[in-house]
Amino acid sequence: MTKPLRLGVAGLGVVGIGLAQLLHRQANLLRVRAGRPIVLSAYSARSRRDGLPEIGAARFTGSAVALAAEGDIDVFVELIGGADGVAFEAVKAALNRGLPVVTANKAMLAGHGLELARLSEAHDAPLFYEAAVGGGIPVIKTLRESLAGNAIERVSGILNGTCNYILSRMETERLPFEACLAEAQRRGYAEADPTFDVGGFDTAHKLAILASLAFGSKIDASAVSVEGIESITLADLAAADELGFRIKLLGVAERTPHGVEQRVHPTMVEKSAPLAQTMGVLNAVSIAGDAIGELTLVGPGAGGDATASAVAADLVDVARGTRLPVFGRPVASLSEADRVPMQRHEGGYYVRLTVVDRPGAMGAIAARFGERMISLEAIMQKRATKAWAEAGVVPVVLMTHGTTEGAIRDALARTLEEGVVREKPQVIRIERDAV
Amino acid sequence: MTKPLRLGVAGLGVVGIGLAQLLHRQANLLRVRAGRPIVLSAYSARSRRDGLPEIGAARFTGSAVALAAEGDIDVFVELIGGADGVAFEAVKAALNRGLPVVTANKAMLAGHGLELARLSEAHDAPLFYEAAVGGGIPVIKTLRESLAGNAIERVSGILNGTCNYILSRMETERLPFEACLAEAQRRGYAEADPTFDVGGFDTAHKLAILASLAFGSKIDASAVSVEGIESITLADLAAADELGFRIKLLGVAERTPHGVEQRVHPTMVEKSAPLAQTMGVLNAVSIAGDAIGELTLVGPGAGGDATASAVAADLVDVARGTRLPVFGRPVASLSEADRVPMQRHEGGYYVRLTVVDRPGAMGAIAARFGERMISLEAIMQKRATKAWAEAGVVPVVLMTHGTTEGAIRDALARTLEEGVVREKPQVIRIERDAV
Repeated sequence: MTKPLRLGVAGLGVVGIGLAQLLHRQANLLRVRAGRPIVLSAYSARSRRDGLPEIGAARFTGSAVALAAEGDIDVFVELIGGADGVAFEAVKAALNRGLPVVTANKAMLAGHGLELARLSEAHDAPLFYEAAVGGGIPVIKTLRESLAGNAIERVSGILNGTCNYILSRMETERLPFEACLAEAQRRGYAEADPTFDVGGFDTAHKLAILASLAFGSKIDASAVSVEGIESITLADLAAADELGFRIKLLGVAERTPHGVEQRVHPTMVEKSAPLAQTMGVLNAVSIAGDAIGELTLVGPGAGGDATASAVAADLVDVARGTRLPVFGRPVASLSEADRVPMQRHEGGYYVRLTVVDRPGAMGAIAARFGERMISLEAIMQKRATKAWAEAGVVPVVLMTHGTTEGAIRDALARTLEEGVVREKPQVIRIERDAV
Repeated sequence: MTKPLRLGVAGLGVVGIGLAQLLHRQANLLRVRAGRPIVLSAYSARSRRDGLPEIGAARFTGSAVALAAEGDIDVFVELIGGADGVAFEAVKAALNRGLPVVTANKAMLAGHGLELARLSEAHDAPLFYEAAVGGGIPVIKTLRESLAGNAIERVSGILNGTCNYILSRMETERLPFEACLAEAQRRGYAEADPTFDVGGFDTAHKLAILASLAFGSKIDASAVSVEGIESITLADLAAADELGFRIKLLGVAERTPHGVEQRVHPTMVEKSAPLAQTMGVLNAVSIAGDAIGELTLVGPGAGGDATASAVAADLVDVARGTRLPVFGRPVASLSEADRVPMQRHEGGYYVRLTVVDRPGAMGAIAARFGERMISLEAIMQKRATKAWAEAGVVPVVLMTHGTTEGAIRDALARTLEEGVVREKPQVIRIERDAV
């Protein structure tokens, strides 16, 4: 097989240019490994980039959909992004004519993954998406292929480098959320509108993909409970440190007695756990399965080169003729995603309260927790600062043994009703065995 | 494709039984993921095991070679072990008749990998071996497929759980090598004759496989420089700890100006590095490539279930018809392995000396190092214990900046000649940027 694999690449942003450079730089290596040359044959973008050496003689078209639907290409590479619009239309057009597709688009997969999987099967057109989750980390291949013989029990990961950078900086530099977010924006790690990242939605899209692969369920981003990192304070990070934990934004998909939970939230992770040791813009994923035990992958979760590395791996798979069901099994055998309300979540909790400084206040709180059968593992009350004292309040941190979210929320609601607590309590879930 | 994939499994040791159990337990999952049933059709072993539910109706044969050469099977699974003998004969017989082979046999691959790759190509019979390195960790797939677009710069790993267990126990329990080895033997982590593990040879076999995949060279275990962990003392671990390091037995294959180094030896690794945090029987591999940056995989490196997980992944690949060159590229494009003498290795060094306690001794040592242009990063000399004092010697630890192995060995030889040092100096290489 020496016929070249001709790519039509839609989108020349950071990843698109990174891919063009990689194809240019590693042309020989890719030819040897794939068994045939992999060539950038045509591209679509907002404007022509014909001057670049890595673009070479590739044909330009202004329309990604036209490139996918009519281009004289062997594989369509979608690097435009966005759940809907041009990216989705173009990918559908490619699959509809039986063209293999490689994409880095997690939002599209989270929103329309099932429809795309159906198209892929109907037209026998493979769909690869290693770059959609974890950047260069081969987590899709690991779940879809390497752990094929495992009943997966849990997938948990740091899937958003922006959030991990901000939390790492807050912890090491003792700077508040806003300052670290601004720094991340200056460094290009965060968008001007950071909601999608810091609100946990990007992590939720990625988790939905991993959960479908791990548990054989129809991908459903709306089944993911999502909380962002905006409310995390330096007081929380300091308390976590003292208790032996770090705070990470985790995506967790886990088999529980109530079904498969899918949740994204700030999480207290023991410092010794591999995920806790993942700092800065790195990503990490831990996977627990019945045969493998626990496997952890750590690497760059973003960046043009690392993401292009994942796209290139998919292209070599396409060139070699590898065929795989989109979510690891035929669509017909995918089950509906469970919807497990967070109220039923079971685990330990960290609770930080601003308690009114008067006799009996702590007793009232302890009583409300006791009534809900919540047992406390640790209580931390420091001497109040002058500001706290003047406000007539004291900060208190509680750490609970295993209980349910419902019990915690109920106990806190009652505590608030009694007026012994000011401000909204901070509640952070603890992940013990998970990571 | 609903025709079952019929396995002939040779060898029912820990991994063979683990595989049979996995196939039995996950029959439905594997059928859905592979697109066809995967069934244990025949097996060879020292004795019949027909009573086991996971063996079911599988046919027994006493001869692995006969099973491979004549068995009515679709894939031959070699779990016998050993570089030569029955395992090698059987695998050759299977490939010779075009039968796909899955093996966990690192010694056979290290010794005969090139010949097997040639047979695989000649007869169009795929050869899969995920279980040969890192147990359940998908490092073969990662190098052979996921990093196909990367020029690999370095692969370094903890590839032998026995050694890592012993070094971890020595460090945390402050027990000498012999005691920790005995403990590992009691727990079944080490063989009665531990030489193969603690001498570094098992790691060398695995490293040779990874190096061939990473650098496109003909596999050649004799190109690996090997040192074991037998000489590591509690004094070394204590000094490492004080200097901010841990001692790990690493396999390192690395592109250098002198060619690709392949080496296995105890290594000082900074405590913050992912490999340093890999304790007990876990394995870990870090891979650096030009596009990916650095990727680290951590997981169980041995055990029946974890190894069976890797074998099962290979079987699903076979069932799906995946085709890959054995070492990631055609044999014709593999280069000769470089042979870089350790004398040319460049890096930092830890040196522990037993120095004669007399005026000018340290000065003489420093002079010999200075003559070889070796600059010292740290010198540690503690107050001598009574035993040391009575022997008239003091223990001294030196840590050097980057230099060459040749310079270190030369400086130490001269120091020994001058009689200012007693006993053989302890020399441990420092891996800084590697991990």
